[in-house]
Amino acid sequence: MKLRSLAIAVAMTGASAGLLLVSSIDNTAQAQETFEWKMVTSWPKNFPGVGQGPERLAELVNEMSDGRLTIEVFGAGQLVPGFEVFDAVAEGTAELGHSASYYWKGKAPAAQFFAAVPFGMNAQEMNAWLHYGGGMELWNELYDDFGVDVLVAGASGVQMGGWYNKEINSVADLDGLKMRMPGLGGEVMNRMGVAIVNMPGGEIFTSLQSGAIDATEWIGPYNDLAFGLHQAADYYYYPGWHEPTVMFEAIINEEAFAELPADLQAILKAAVRDINADVLDEYTARNNDALETLINEHDVELRRLPDDVLAQAQEHSADVVAELAESSELAGRIHESYRAFQDKVVNYHTISEQAYYNARNPDEATSN
Amino acid sequence: MKLRSLAIAVAMTGASAGLLLVSSIDNTAQAQETFEWKMVTSWPKNFPGVGQGPERLAELVNEMSDGRLTIEVFGAGQLVPGFEVFDAVAEGTAELGHSASYYWKGKAPAAQFFAAVPFGMNAQEMNAWLHYGGGMELWNELYDDFGVDVLVAGASGVQMGGWYNKEINSVADLDGLKMRMPGLGGEVMNRMGVAIVNMPGGEIFTSLQSGAIDATEWIGPYNDLAFGLHQAADYYYYPGWHEPTVMFEAIINEEAFAELPADLQAILKAAVRDINADVLDEYTARNNDALETLINEHDVELRRLPDDVLAQAQEHSADVVAELAESSELAGRIHESYRAFQDKVVNYHTISEQAYYNARNPDEATSN
Repeated sequence: MKLRSLAIAVAMTGASAGLLLVSSIDNTAQAQETFEWKMVTSWPKNFPGVGQGPERLAELVNEMSDGRLTIEVFGAGQLVPGFEVFDAVAEGTAELGHSASYYWKGKAPAAQFFAAVPFGMNAQEMNAWLHYGGGMELWNELYDDFGVDVLVAGASGVQMGGWYNKEINSVADLDGLKMRMPGLGGEVMNRMGVAIVNMPGGEIFTSLQSGAIDATEWIGPYNDLAFGLHQAADYYYYPGWHEPTVMFEAIINEEAFAELPADLQAILKAAVRDINADVLDEYTARNNDALETLINEHDVELRRLPDDVLAQAQEHSADVVAELAESSELAGRIHESYRAFQDKVVNYHTISEQAYYNARNPDEATSN
Repeated sequence: MKLRSLAIAVAMTGASAGLLLVSSIDNTAQAQETFEWKMVTSWPKNFPGVGQGPERLAELVNEMSDGRLTIEVFGAGQLVPGFEVFDAVAEGTAELGHSASYYWKGKAPAAQFFAAVPFGMNAQEMNAWLHYGGGMELWNELYDDFGVDVLVAGASGVQMGGWYNKEINSVADLDGLKMRMPGLGGEVMNRMGVAIVNMPGGEIFTSLQSGAIDATEWIGPYNDLAFGLHQAADYYYYPGWHEPTVMFEAIINEEAFAELPADLQAILKAAVRDINADVLDEYTARNNDALETLINEHDVELRRLPDDVLAQAQEHSADVVAELAESSELAGRIHESYRAFQDKVVNYHTISEQAYYNARNPDEATSN
């Protein structure tokens, strides 16, 4: 409407500078409007794995929209610090953000349910819950108060248990250990006698090497190798019970999204769904190679966490998650939905994915 | 045309100074060209699970292209029979098809590597191989001779082992059984004494009920419940070693694809990537509910296939797959790429996904 009148006005009066003149009919007029968006992220620019998702997103949207929606991607600290991504999108400093929801637990503790839950669902299960079990609706309800929409935008897969500079043969060996492990997993470790130290990723290597911490978790072989953690600790433990995946998020300023025509909204959503799968595909492929390098070239010793550590961690996890569920009415509903879906999907995956892994490779199955 | 006249009219009335005339006239004209495509599928129209993928694809493409590319979806038999989807797309009867590549083993035996390999890779692993391990390039090389492009377009996840009307306690119990199991898995069963009977999905129920066959596999709880197979057999076996997933495919007529402008090509590819994930999400969610219904409402007895059946099936599978690799030079290269990737991803998933499943639910791990 506006555009059409504008075009007519221009045609009648002669034009002013910088005017965006578009074609004749309503649809076409709208179709030709262009948008230049900023995307802030919590990762170093072009960071391996998760940092590739935003770059691919920008490229896909540019191709699909024929340049009508362009997205400039900023690494952590380039436009705003990595931990201010949510605020920047909420306030409209950037239209888009790429991050992980557990960083916002100070604003909304229940956000942690959508990133990583100790002994919770893995990537395949999370995607099913989010898209077919009501998860996305709850996540958007949680962010509604902040003027932000959210889409799931990547997964790490099951992470590693962490790097330790001493052997862990039982829960007793954890006592008094200083470890970097954020979030709910850290709280669980704390209940098993570990002193949790918080620090950004950039400080991990030096702290581990200097002995300021005795252990750390990071992500998985691909990112851990890039950080050089094998040079600072001898033992590499599995599995990552504390992070059966991290799901990443694309957060979108609600007002900016509402201004997009319907086709660009659909393009943006499909591009995010694309990177949601693509980030996991990249991690699944690259972690293999990195694991091989760590073992064959750097003589890293792989260790499975002892049964009693896993069993106690599972018990404490249930407590920690139940406490989180009490943090608000909405947190309670999210927990209920999450738990109900996990119960059912564990039943099914026991006889499908898990049983298949164990049939294909009986050695791991009998190692505990 | 309209656009051009308008632009000229505007320019002539003196609007030119500083005026941003929308892109090039030619591009804009092309951008408005519309395409009406047909999509043939190997499934009944709106079939639960896999049949939803094509419907969603058509809807997404329509939204993203603002109606410039519309896709009419045909169920099996509506335009061409389900097993003639490949030919219909190759010949241009339809621009798009949705199917599974093992149906084309008569044309290209190696196509089976991209659908389901006994004791091969599951959905997460296949996606990593296809997108980051060279799989998609090999798949497209295989279809090149037929004038068809291919994208992966859905996954079933680990399937069930099948419905049996008698208990299977060892390999000896398989001897002389008449079973419906297509593809490489059927060949493996045949080497364990099973008489393999081929029939389309629509005939399975009656054949099982009449005793014409003693056993069948189909897909998983969601589709099996819909078929009513629990009314025709007592025992439901797991895991589906013969189909650790089926990957579905979108096949595209090469010439038709080349005629699309670049933005519509990108939109089509992203929409296929969307349904690739979405079909698995739907199966993961719906299989849970269906399994619960089968057990709680229909008293279906779940049984794990005995260790000796699984162990012998694994050995025969390696033989069957190695023989397939010898069917052509390209089949050999596909097998080499597949095998190398599987070796690495099994190493990694042993300490990540598999170890995590077993830590979360130690019962299944120790059941064998």
